[in-house]
Amino acid sequence: MPSMRVSEIGEFGLIDHIRTIIARYRDVGQTPWQEVLVDTGDDAAAWRSNGTVQLATTDTLVQGVHFNLSVVSWEELGWKSLAVNLSDIAAMGGVPEYALVSLAIPGELELDNISAFCESMAQLARQCGVAIVGGNIAAAPIVVITAAIMGRSKGETILRRSTANPGEQIAITGYTGLSAAGLEILTRKTKLDQEATTMLRRAHLQPVPRIREGQILVEHGVKTAIDISDGLVADLDHICEMSRVNARVTLDLVPMHDALIANFPNHRELALCGGEDYELLFTADADTVARVKRSVDCPVTVIGEITDEDTPARVTVMDSKGDVIPYGKGGWQHFKDEISESRLRQP
Amino acid sequence: MPSMRVSEIGEFGLIDHIRTIIARYRDVGQTPWQEVLVDTGDDAAAWRSNGTVQLATTDTLVQGVHFNLSVVSWEELGWKSLAVNLSDIAAMGGVPEYALVSLAIPGELELDNISAFCESMAQLARQCGVAIVGGNIAAAPIVVITAAIMGRSKGETILRRSTANPGEQIAITGYTGLSAAGLEILTRKTKLDQEATTMLRRAHLQPVPRIREGQILVEHGVKTAIDISDGLVADLDHICEMSRVNARVTLDLVPMHDALIANFPNHRELALCGGEDYELLFTADADTVARVKRSVDCPVTVIGEITDEDTPARVTVMDSKGDVIPYGKGGWQHFKDEISESRLRQP
Repeated sequence: MPSMRVSEIGEFGLIDHIRTIIARYRDVGQTPWQEVLVDTGDDAAAWRSNGTVQLATTDTLVQGVHFNLSVVSWEELGWKSLAVNLSDIAAMGGVPEYALVSLAIPGELELDNISAFCESMAQLARQCGVAIVGGNIAAAPIVVITAAIMGRSKGETILRRSTANPGEQIAITGYTGLSAAGLEILTRKTKLDQEATTMLRRAHLQPVPRIREGQILVEHGVKTAIDISDGLVADLDHICEMSRVNARVTLDLVPMHDALIANFPNHRELALCGGEDYELLFTADADTVARVKRSVDCPVTVIGEITDEDTPARVTVMDSKGDVIPYGKGGWQHFKDEISESRLRQP
Repeated sequence: MPSMRVSEIGEFGLIDHIRTIIARYRDVGQTPWQEVLVDTGDDAAAWRSNGTVQLATTDTLVQGVHFNLSVVSWEELGWKSLAVNLSDIAAMGGVPEYALVSLAIPGELELDNISAFCESMAQLARQCGVAIVGGNIAAAPIVVITAAIMGRSKGETILRRSTANPGEQIAITGYTGLSAAGLEILTRKTKLDQEATTMLRRAHLQPVPRIREGQILVEHGVKTAIDISDGLVADLDHICEMSRVNARVTLDLVPMHDALIANFPNHRELALCGGEDYELLFTADADTVARVKRSVDCPVTVIGEITDEDTPARVTVMDSKGDVIPYGKGGWQHFKDEISESRLRQP
């Protein structure tokens, strides 16, 4: 009997499969395992070390899967490679500190490109107080960039995916769908006015990780958050899965950016399922959300609530009348993208 | 004027280039930079954190560059991906603790292969007291594996490349050239007896990182070490460069394994330039080396000494009569392998 293929179980199935294997070899008697607070299944790993909580995360960008060199500049790529990792630390409410960068690249690449890449990455690192302390260089037929970031929590608390409770509000920072709209512009060569083009392109290629916002969430007592990388609904689904709760999103409450409404007939789909927004999605009681709202510089919008209702889907999207809106499978999942109804990223 | 290509400056030139850019953006006023003890230019990065020294390193294996799936099993690949990183922590004399693993793989891959990969990696992790706490999965046209390991020093001291002094002995653990010989067997399908084949294949694909040995070096007061990944001469050259010294190796002192002498006419070249041995190369005064020798289970051999002589090359290899032996450029360097005289790795 031929073995099953990775594409048949998809990214999340594969992650579960790998977690099961790793768990089987876990030796809870060993010191490192005793200190682990969060291993796989959250935005970053976390463990205790000398009275603080250490955080670590890694993310990879693959040429032809995550980016297309014909439409992306090396400067943007350098920024984004680090930003997606910083966002994972932000989603834990942590302080990013040290980065390692592994670059697999073809030898025929122009050195100027690597310079632009590094300059941009170093600039973002400096802006976020991160020291790039090492990495690796390897020859490869395609460009594959893996960064790892290590950091710490500010206090005792870290934001998790597994701590949402029924009755809590669901809120997001900023707007979703802008990154996916930026990708549509890049791949379909859609023509918009200069201002919208620049803003959407930047949303896709130079996202600003919500580091300070994540820390403010912790300061105000928020316990549950995730960064929106797979898509608003998909990431809310991750929270629901880990917290064993359900969620109801009211579509009319989801903030829609003017540039999205004006230029994209599918703006609702983009906002719900777009992915790569690197905004924070969090849950908390109404008072806490209100306090957060007053403390951060970016918009914070309540879009729904966590429930313990017995609904067919973990995440239900409703219109203002309370009717259920089908939103498709949506979201980004590696290997399974061919069956996704709304496939928004480039091939 | 067209920009220079990466292949024109080679791996080490590129690393220098990147280091210069990163350094320009370094803000020594920022907390993480203030705590950094070692950034790029050693086996692992190191920084102070709450009275301990933290270590972090990353390494990438690329299909078709570092391994060929037609001759390597997934089990061996899982082992090696982690082992090469563990070896970097060993070369700092540290204790590896936590690992992140980033897997970029084609969707058509069989799940059984991933299982074998993870089982083997998890087994090595357990053996070395390491907790695999996270990672990343991405779709990619080829297999690219990046692991990152975080650890700590046992005491205050870490082993560095930059601390060698004239007059010190140069010593290595175990044997070099076995991994390169294993690769020759795999790629040229050389037929040897079963025992030698198994041993050499294992040396190439399942190296055992010298973690305990690295710690023993520190305990006995050794300050300078590197793990042999590029090749004995090439890695000794790294020490000389960072320490601003020269080195003299006596070829007859370099330990040659029986299996190498019996089966490989080029055994001297393999031992000097082979690479991927993951043995430790260290320098210390004669008394210290003698104490280390009595404390470790593996062979420790003095192969030469650190000098401040004004020699044409940083590393000079001599025969027993004191005549200089040309050893070729040797060693492994990404992008520049086409100009290497002794190219030992698979394409």
